[in-house]
Amino acid sequence: MRERLDMKRAVPAREGSTVTLAEKTPLRLDSGTEIGPFAMSYMTYGTLNEAKSNAVLICHALTGDQYVASDHPVTGKPGWWGRMVGPGKVLDTDRYFVICANVLGGCMGTAGPQEIDPETGRPWGLGFPVITIGDMVRAQSLLIDHLGIDELFCVIGGSMGGMQVLQWAAAYPERVANAVPIACAARHSAQNIAFHEVGRQAIMADPQWRGGDYYESGETPRAGLAVARMAAHVTYLSETALHRKFGRNLQNRERLTYGFDADFQVESYLRHQGITFVDRFDANSYLYITRAMDYFDLAAEHGGVLARAFANSRTRFCVVSFSSDWLFPTTEARDVVRALNASAANVSFVEIQTDKGHDAFLLDEPEMFATIGGFLEASAVRRGIL
Amino acid sequence: MRERLDMKRAVPAREGSTVTLAEKTPLRLDSGTEIGPFAMSYMTYGTLNEAKSNAVLICHALTGDQYVASDHPVTGKPGWWGRMVGPGKVLDTDRYFVICANVLGGCMGTAGPQEIDPETGRPWGLGFPVITIGDMVRAQSLLIDHLGIDELFCVIGGSMGGMQVLQWAAAYPERVANAVPIACAARHSAQNIAFHEVGRQAIMADPQWRGGDYYESGETPRAGLAVARMAAHVTYLSETALHRKFGRNLQNRERLTYGFDADFQVESYLRHQGITFVDRFDANSYLYITRAMDYFDLAAEHGGVLARAFANSRTRFCVVSFSSDWLFPTTEARDVVRALNASAANVSFVEIQTDKGHDAFLLDEPEMFATIGGFLEASAVRRGIL
Repeated sequence: MRERLDMKRAVPAREGSTVTLAEKTPLRLDSGTEIGPFAMSYMTYGTLNEAKSNAVLICHALTGDQYVASDHPVTGKPGWWGRMVGPGKVLDTDRYFVICANVLGGCMGTAGPQEIDPETGRPWGLGFPVITIGDMVRAQSLLIDHLGIDELFCVIGGSMGGMQVLQWAAAYPERVANAVPIACAARHSAQNIAFHEVGRQAIMADPQWRGGDYYESGETPRAGLAVARMAAHVTYLSETALHRKFGRNLQNRERLTYGFDADFQVESYLRHQGITFVDRFDANSYLYITRAMDYFDLAAEHGGVLARAFANSRTRFCVVSFSSDWLFPTTEARDVVRALNASAANVSFVEIQTDKGHDAFLLDEPEMFATIGGFLEASAVRRGIL
Repeated sequence: MRERLDMKRAVPAREGSTVTLAEKTPLRLDSGTEIGPFAMSYMTYGTLNEAKSNAVLICHALTGDQYVASDHPVTGKPGWWGRMVGPGKVLDTDRYFVICANVLGGCMGTAGPQEIDPETGRPWGLGFPVITIGDMVRAQSLLIDHLGIDELFCVIGGSMGGMQVLQWAAAYPERVANAVPIACAARHSAQNIAFHEVGRQAIMADPQWRGGDYYESGETPRAGLAVARMAAHVTYLSETALHRKFGRNLQNRERLTYGFDADFQVESYLRHQGITFVDRFDANSYLYITRAMDYFDLAAEHGGVLARAFANSRTRFCVVSFSSDWLFPTTEARDVVRALNASAANVSFVEIQTDKGHDAFLLDEPEMFATIGGFLEASAVRRGIL
């Protein structure tokens, strides 16, 4: 698809674009494979100013996409970060030019396993190269080049989005004025790798997965992907949140049914999470993106010393964690803060008290809004972004 | 199979027995269904004394069985609690007559979904009645009757075994002198129900499951059961234990492979857990037993007041929890202790400091051995059990 950038600048409507990147020079991935040209789909909100100094890049999480503040084209649901992005909100689209691109390996228009491999004319499937958080960020940097932006006012994201923020700050320090990594870590823990592996095995156990070559079969590994989503979803919540939300409440019933239907509301809720997810997400993309997270270990690229990843950085950092997040606990955020301090970086850190678990970054968390809003406001005023 | 009780008394060898229970009067289950006659398989160790005052009943956990201190007949591995049970050990078989029975709904000889329904002559499958922790304990009480034992010196178990201990103490206070519930709770939390539901959905998503009617197909839902086991296994460990054991170590490789093989040791370990489990466990039993745990809510049977479950109890309790157990955290053990205190019961409580997570009750935990050993020793001496 021909991109419509110029039109978008004139009319900052909520429309998406797809651009072809790496047309002249292929992108070299961490695996050593080269890829390109490849498509990247993205959304923008607001208007890029003359100085091109007001761009905010939002990096999405594992199952997120570019529809950060627009209705989702498949589900029709509101954007996943509508609370944060819009006129007068923390990421104020009257002030900032907000960009969010579907990650490399994704399934919402950016090159990924469900797209056509130009060499074979058939979907990539597992022929798509395994990608890393570093590759995702390198691909995004080509988009930012394409948009003619030298320096991003801010790179922000939660969970896997936060990993990308850290990677951006480490790989392109001169291009990131402010970095806001939320609910993330500089490396994926053994426990998190384990949970991801459960999800991958659930997908691969589904006969409809067919070794990843299911696109032309007319079937997709829905059952396996739903189980993967359910397993992951439990880790996004806290026990307190689950207890408050559902406890042991029964599902539309006065008493136990002594069967295997969803007796408890929490079961029904989980099943719903699984079933609705498969309509909007590609199972192979789930494999690739979880793998990218597992591989993430920012210190490893710098001799095992995380502080070196941020040497001489002039980026301002605002690290955010949530007290009840057990997937990316505050201890991991502290490791990032410690490394930033050890590299004399400009860093503030807030652990937000909440019982909502990892998913808190997507929810109504006034303290998060106030923290990030204040952090960006100061920088925006100093830079004359009105 | 004809039971060999008398022979066992004369020769306290490590042999198993199967007994037919509820021959004259069927057992009424919590669901209202009646079952019987039904088989129960069990192991005993040591010798029942003349006074029949030295019997210890061990209740096994979700995937445990009666082979508490004997090599497993399928896997050939040593008994699951060999550290606790044997001559000179905490549950000293020179002193105590130790009994462990496969739970109702299980798959190691006790009536369960893989056994033959006498009415149809075919395996029960999902025709087997849904059972509860209360049903498991009622069935065990028939075995204890059968063995001619009025009062058990001790009922002990971890995880689901601990739930049974609490149920025993509540349902048969006059038959339990000492109760040792370990790493458990008086009700299953929303988070734990959610994890169980993931496992059940993984099994049911496997086409080989065939609605539970797979026994005569020549295939079993191995893939789904393996995923269920993997998902559960992560919850049995702590992040610290996983980190210490595996961290981000690679599996027999110098570097990342950029593929979906088991790159990390933790992946390989999990896959092994899944694959070996399916050889020894029935998928339908997994459904039934997880359901029984989900249904467990001891207070609910007593007007929502847990203390009432233990009213006028003369049982001595030793409640044990582990500091890094996030499946059955210490807060849940405290709820049990608080209820026992509120019913003026004789209770001691120990939270053992360990980073091994929920599985600690199966592992080498000297403080657990010392705590439980001391607790039982005092009672044994007072009762003249030598």
